[in-house]
Amino acid sequence: MSGGGLFLNQDKDIVIIGCGAGGVTVAQFARKTDRKSTITVFEQGAYPQYSKCGLPYAISGKIPKIMDLVEFSEDWFKKINIDIHLKTRVEKIDVKNKKIFAKKEGKTIEKAFGRLIICSGAKPFIPPIKNIDAQGVFALRTIDDAKKIQAYAKNAKNATIIGAGLIGLEMADNLYSLGLKIAIVEALPNILANNLDDDMAKLVVEKIPKKINVFTNHIATKTENIDGKVSKITIKNKESGEEKTFDTDLVIIATGTKPNVELAKQIGCKIGSTGGIIVNNKSKTSIKNVYAVGDCTEYLNFVNVKPALVGLGSIVVRQGIAAGVNAAGGKYTLPRGLLMTSTSEFFGIEIASVGPTTNNLSDFSVLSARFNGSSLPHYYPGGQPISIKIMVDEYTGMIMAVQAVGQNAALRINTFACAILGQMDIETFRKLETAYAPPIAPTLDATTLVCDMASMKLSRKN
Amino acid sequence: MSGGGLFLNQDKDIVIIGCGAGGVTVAQFARKTDRKSTITVFEQGAYPQYSKCGLPYAISGKIPKIMDLVEFSEDWFKKINIDIHLKTRVEKIDVKNKKIFAKKEGKTIEKAFGRLIICSGAKPFIPPIKNIDAQGVFALRTIDDAKKIQAYAKNAKNATIIGAGLIGLEMADNLYSLGLKIAIVEALPNILANNLDDDMAKLVVEKIPKKINVFTNHIATKTENIDGKVSKITIKNKESGEEKTFDTDLVIIATGTKPNVELAKQIGCKIGSTGGIIVNNKSKTSIKNVYAVGDCTEYLNFVNVKPALVGLGSIVVRQGIAAGVNAAGGKYTLPRGLLMTSTSEFFGIEIASVGPTTNNLSDFSVLSARFNGSSLPHYYPGGQPISIKIMVDEYTGMIMAVQAVGQNAALRINTFACAILGQMDIETFRKLETAYAPPIAPTLDATTLVCDMASMKLSRKN
Repeated sequence: MSGGGLFLNQDKDIVIIGCGAGGVTVAQFARKTDRKSTITVFEQGAYPQYSKCGLPYAISGKIPKIMDLVEFSEDWFKKINIDIHLKTRVEKIDVKNKKIFAKKEGKTIEKAFGRLIICSGAKPFIPPIKNIDAQGVFALRTIDDAKKIQAYAKNAKNATIIGAGLIGLEMADNLYSLGLKIAIVEALPNILANNLDDDMAKLVVEKIPKKINVFTNHIATKTENIDGKVSKITIKNKESGEEKTFDTDLVIIATGTKPNVELAKQIGCKIGSTGGIIVNNKSKTSIKNVYAVGDCTEYLNFVNVKPALVGLGSIVVRQGIAAGVNAAGGKYTLPRGLLMTSTSEFFGIEIASVGPTTNNLSDFSVLSARFNGSSLPHYYPGGQPISIKIMVDEYTGMIMAVQAVGQNAALRINTFACAILGQMDIETFRKLETAYAPPIAPTLDATTLVCDMASMKLSRKN
Repeated sequence: MSGGGLFLNQDKDIVIIGCGAGGVTVAQFARKTDRKSTITVFEQGAYPQYSKCGLPYAISGKIPKIMDLVEFSEDWFKKINIDIHLKTRVEKIDVKNKKIFAKKEGKTIEKAFGRLIICSGAKPFIPPIKNIDAQGVFALRTIDDAKKIQAYAKNAKNATIIGAGLIGLEMADNLYSLGLKIAIVEALPNILANNLDDDMAKLVVEKIPKKINVFTNHIATKTENIDGKVSKITIKNKESGEEKTFDTDLVIIATGTKPNVELAKQIGCKIGSTGGIIVNNKSKTSIKNVYAVGDCTEYLNFVNVKPALVGLGSIVVRQGIAAGVNAAGGKYTLPRGLLMTSTSEFFGIEIASVGPTTNNLSDFSVLSARFNGSSLPHYYPGGQPISIKIMVDEYTGMIMAVQAVGQNAALRINTFACAILGQMDIETFRKLETAYAPPIAPTLDATTLVCDMASMKLSRKN
């Protein structure tokens, strides 16, 4: 495949900046597509790819060893003939001469590329809080962060989680399971605002143990420190301005991330309104021969067709496949947008969603319905509650978004994700034959019953 | 809605024959559609609708009370103004004069109808076995059968299950859980032949406890009885002709059912090649004003477009909705065929499938792929095996059928059912963003990984 002779080998050389879930997937699929191309990966951290999403569970010990999160060893890269440079930071891209310059142990490495894939990830967004650089204040992004938090949590009593998104709540649950007293501080009026509408988020709120203080509509303003270690935190009610100060010896900042786009900007890649590198359905940037993958990118949301930051591991690997295959000369295109299918669980409750929240569907006329049912027929013991909310376009009947809270929420949401990807309307989808057996699911599952409700509402309108 | 005056009220009168899952759903949705119509239900049994699928679990006590299976009480019918006649057998239909004649406690009832819905169900198919009418030999169809089996099982030691389909295996598992020694006799070369291909059925075979003897390729030929009670059974190897006789004091016949079509035949309803009453997408028969619903009917299979007996509770209720709504003057059409989505679990393993087995796709050029994965990322403890097999049309890439064995097989199959209903091809579906979180599902779920394998095979062929 890789030719000698008339054309330059280096045209086929693939250079990957960053070895997170995106980078490693690019490498893997580039190699699958072209067995002979030269593939080089530069990673500033000390480890090859590991599961970032697994970090909260490794901190609590639910995943017994943090290092088990490392999914691809240096050996794995060697075996498939990929050159990986750890602790190596790419500092400059010369896009005209198709070269990158990286720093490894003080030395500069120069490497030519035919195709460049930027997988520079994201950094934690740190809100303006006074004294935030004290010991005991952490953001969770890397395996080293997790190790430090784990060590620190052993001697901590009161943890404060700033930000009640997925990672904030995962951290709250995992630190709570270690016996810490927990406070959660969220600037918005409700938790999980990126994933669930307020009425659905309430179902999660009900599951948060009463011992945990949840301060919504609050921002953290400052910490007090003793010997450089955090000892107290002050939070302020955004509406009343009222302040509260309480003891805390561990603070986790989980207020989202910002894409790392410095290198991409340097070479003129178009940056979108979300702050991410704009990529197309092959995960190509606006610059020839340059791809970008993962948390540093933005793509369109499938449903509302607005730019969206990628930020979900499941999407990152799919972009990685697209970039890897295409960069190596194959063909693979992604759907025309992101479904944003996501899930998590905390305090014994599973949540999942697909498509935008109602707040992000304001350009559409949206009708919603919600069904609260059971995972099993009423006569079979052990059924668990499952609540599903569906958002339907009033004019077309198209399914736009679905949120689920309860048993196997994620697998039910996958079925709706399929319906959205297949652009099915509510009338078609609600007649779906779901699998039924008394120990497994009711004759009519919540999956279609919520659609019947939406359909009924729709028929009254139209 | 129901008019007086110029047209006969009786044109709107709805008469339902049979009050199984079909009949009760018809009644419910007819009432929802027209609050004023007269609805009358005739049921030859002593109970209003109950869950037939729940019977095996009630026998073992997993469902604590058999009578909990009765989902709709006589009171429920009264409350929504539906006249129900139990222990009443409809003996004749006069389709010309739109009347039925029923027998209740020796008396004949005559009832006029505007719309008639036949929900006459099915009866067990009893294979030719000598002395089969002994005590201790049962087919499981009614709540009374279940009560008798439950009582008999208390004093039984050795149960023989004839037929290794879903109900046969459900009975085997439930009787095994009561401490009985179990033998399973199946005429076909493998178990679950209606649901799984042989390679997938093997995964279930591996889970059947070694104490249970499974005789595939065997038919039961005779029983021996003491004092009218079954004491031994003889089975014959279909290939070698070799016979075996062993002790048994309980025999369950689970070799399928035959539609009850006597009444429908009487009035000239078209009967299909499967022996079921042919119905359309409104669940109408070939005779004006006459609908049929449930195990007595046949409809087309969505995928291979061949006639198929309905025979699944999940489909029966959907037909019931269609017949009920349309008979009462509303509009509701079913998809153009049956997906045959089904599931069950036995011996701790869940199975599910959608679409025909490979044997029933012989008219197509089918490519298959199988993936054996885990329900969780490898680094997260507690992942369970999940195997998925997919069948794809080689010429079009359309997903035709999927089988799954393992954790949450059913909910995964629902997603494929959606893909089939939406007529998605493998290239579209395999890019589905499934929900990912370490404690819930891997970044790439088995749901799409099996499709990647099929896609790769397909691209090598085309």
